[in-house]
Amino acid sequence: MAQSFRMVDIIAKKRDGRPLTTAEIEWFIHGYTAGAIPDYQAAALAMAIYLRGMSRQETVDLTQAMAHSGDQLDLHDVAPFVVDKHSSGGVGDKTTLAVQPLVAACGVPVGKMSGRGLGSSGGTLDKMESIAGWRLELTLEQFKKQLADIGLVLAGQTAALAPADGKMYALRDVTATVASVPLIAASIMSKKLAAGADAIVLDVKLGSGAFMATVAEARELAQVMVNIGKDAGRRMVALLSDMNQPLGHAIGNALEVKEAIATLQGDGPQDFWAHSLEVAAQMLRLAGKTDDLDEAKRMITAARDDGRAWDKFGEMVIAQGGNVAQIDDPARLPAAAIVEPITAPHSGYIAGMDTGAIGWAAVHLGGGRMVKTDKIDHAVGFVLPAKIGAAFQAGDELGMVHAADRDAADQAKAELLAALSWSDEPVPPRPHFHGTVE
Amino acid sequence: MAQSFRMVDIIAKKRDGRPLTTAEIEWFIHGYTAGAIPDYQAAALAMAIYLRGMSRQETVDLTQAMAHSGDQLDLHDVAPFVVDKHSSGGVGDKTTLAVQPLVAACGVPVGKMSGRGLGSSGGTLDKMESIAGWRLELTLEQFKKQLADIGLVLAGQTAALAPADGKMYALRDVTATVASVPLIAASIMSKKLAAGADAIVLDVKLGSGAFMATVAEARELAQVMVNIGKDAGRRMVALLSDMNQPLGHAIGNALEVKEAIATLQGDGPQDFWAHSLEVAAQMLRLAGKTDDLDEAKRMITAARDDGRAWDKFGEMVIAQGGNVAQIDDPARLPAAAIVEPITAPHSGYIAGMDTGAIGWAAVHLGGGRMVKTDKIDHAVGFVLPAKIGAAFQAGDELGMVHAADRDAADQAKAELLAALSWSDEPVPPRPHFHGTVE
Repeated sequence: MAQSFRMVDIIAKKRDGRPLTTAEIEWFIHGYTAGAIPDYQAAALAMAIYLRGMSRQETVDLTQAMAHSGDQLDLHDVAPFVVDKHSSGGVGDKTTLAVQPLVAACGVPVGKMSGRGLGSSGGTLDKMESIAGWRLELTLEQFKKQLADIGLVLAGQTAALAPADGKMYALRDVTATVASVPLIAASIMSKKLAAGADAIVLDVKLGSGAFMATVAEARELAQVMVNIGKDAGRRMVALLSDMNQPLGHAIGNALEVKEAIATLQGDGPQDFWAHSLEVAAQMLRLAGKTDDLDEAKRMITAARDDGRAWDKFGEMVIAQGGNVAQIDDPARLPAAAIVEPITAPHSGYIAGMDTGAIGWAAVHLGGGRMVKTDKIDHAVGFVLPAKIGAAFQAGDELGMVHAADRDAADQAKAELLAALSWSDEPVPPRPHFHGTVE
Repeated sequence: MAQSFRMVDIIAKKRDGRPLTTAEIEWFIHGYTAGAIPDYQAAALAMAIYLRGMSRQETVDLTQAMAHSGDQLDLHDVAPFVVDKHSSGGVGDKTTLAVQPLVAACGVPVGKMSGRGLGSSGGTLDKMESIAGWRLELTLEQFKKQLADIGLVLAGQTAALAPADGKMYALRDVTATVASVPLIAASIMSKKLAAGADAIVLDVKLGSGAFMATVAEARELAQVMVNIGKDAGRRMVALLSDMNQPLGHAIGNALEVKEAIATLQGDGPQDFWAHSLEVAAQMLRLAGKTDDLDEAKRMITAARDDGRAWDKFGEMVIAQGGNVAQIDDPARLPAAAIVEPITAPHSGYIAGMDTGAIGWAAVHLGGGRMVKTDKIDHAVGFVLPAKIGAAFQAGDELGMVHAADRDAADQAKAELLAALSWSDEPVPPRPHFHGTVE
């Protein structure tokens, strides 16, 4: 950094609603990551950004500075064009498990670094760890070799990507500065840019189980992230998808792996297939396989129908040490001691779901984490085919709870039923897609 | 504290513009003072308060919580009614030196804890230390005994008053959260309340040498402080006084002591006498000596004219170990090596002064501190009779610089002249008082 600033001046500038320069933002991120700028000054700046916002240029500058705060991955020696996806998180969101093999089976290499779950959203790595022996810790060399060999890798972080983001996120979490669009966008996109993707499909969720409550809020966040990516020279598209009810039927780690397997084998819930097809087709399109989204969907569907995607999933599990017998026979995946139906307390139509509460009910079953150090029970969760608009008679089966013991099962049923609202009048089904942002 | 909160929830509440409860504010101040709440959370809250403001109730609660964070003085065993004054700081503001003996001479005991200077505003204690031997460090017992014996004490802090304020102020200083009306008001008033005053006269400055630039801003701050005091059961009045030019003529420690002495002896600049008379009369009025401000002014003037106030000043200097020969013959106070006139660069009327810059010029001469550890040269400064509206011919003497050496004198002259603006047309004199707030 050639130029030097006073942090208090930078805070005051943002406090007064004036835009920060590229040099000021770079200086801050560099100094904060290096420990030269204390947390209390970063906290004051984060609150000023929360309340004053950031321009498109500032948000791009912040993202780039964070992306440059650690390692920068370049996978072009093993993949000519790198496409990535990111989901803003939701309940029952096992999309990566289906989409990655579908895309890889169409000849587009997908090397993805994923995360663990915390709170009501599950984590892709936790789901995959339902498979005995499956390793998420790969060196960068192993990551690249597997990407070159089979075109499909799913791993934890192999490099110190965007350490500024990790530090900023931990601070925002305790200073009530998480829910800021520029800060969320910079956090997500800095890791994606550092991971070296040429194209990124963003899956921005909205509704009762998502961070963004409304279509308008989700669209705003999506637009900011798409802008960042474009300004950084990446191909971008964002889908706005509904999280007012869980995605698919399964909620819980091994249950979601089973659902992903079924989906790759041509079975599985219709809504989850439609969602995976959309995401996968957009990835093919951005990767340049075709300009026509319908054509991309036909290619993805063919890769499912002729078994190539399923084979690709198996190759990845084997390459990463997973017990292939468990995916060939999903009954061998972890199973819960108690599996019981959840029944409708009265007749009527499901009018709404507190999807976040359903996610938390799965956490309380032991399927997720309240704090980072919590251990996960991969077997537990829900299978909930009931969707908004569905009609039930009192006593009809809504779905199943998978629990470790009696008390947990009873509590989970109560929490799940409390998360549902009912209507005596017919309720239309929820639309799943709310548009795209490019 | 019976109740417990999560700091992140308190920050989020203020961030969203919702008022904090008394219990939340007490919990925060208690925890922050005790070190249980980290600086980064306090910094985020301070920025949220800066940008979202505080209601009257919140500001009173914050002030009371800070006032209760350390010792609470009770002087009623030696003074039946305690009256205090506070100035928001300015250039040439030696008001306390004149006002305290004037009020004490009228039979109202004045025990005041004062501060040192930092930046362009001088400090009362620094000025008094121009007198050799004068001690500002008194124990609480010494403070009370002197207050009982002669009715006049001027000292540094004898007790740990409002430690929360010291900690908060240090944090605000480095997080760009100083210039917030509720935070300024709580900072000032918490120390005054902890110091046990029954009545407080606030001298709120405005203009180029003050923290508040305009009458409206000064009135807002004054009203908030008056409200806090009243809600805490104190008698309150605030004067709004002009700091678009220095107060009186002298700027610099020994020079200001000389001007205060002259004033107590019936001499001294007219504007400084008028200011001291107003502040002192308001103190008499609040102390209940008379309800009539004009009557109070006659009493103060009489205490000056018959020498009682001057005698009282001498008693205080002697009681605190000061060399009385220096006040009896102010020529024996520290004197600068170089004393030279500053002359008008051209003919015209003085149209304006950057009073803050004049204060900084005095600091650069060595008369003040840029950082807390700076040593002070008590001899240096300016005597500047020139006021806004005054007419000069080129080469006329505007005032004198008192400097330690040639370079310092030249720099100070240049800085002083750069702080003046001129007009070819007549300029009306500035009004000094801009009203009162009760």
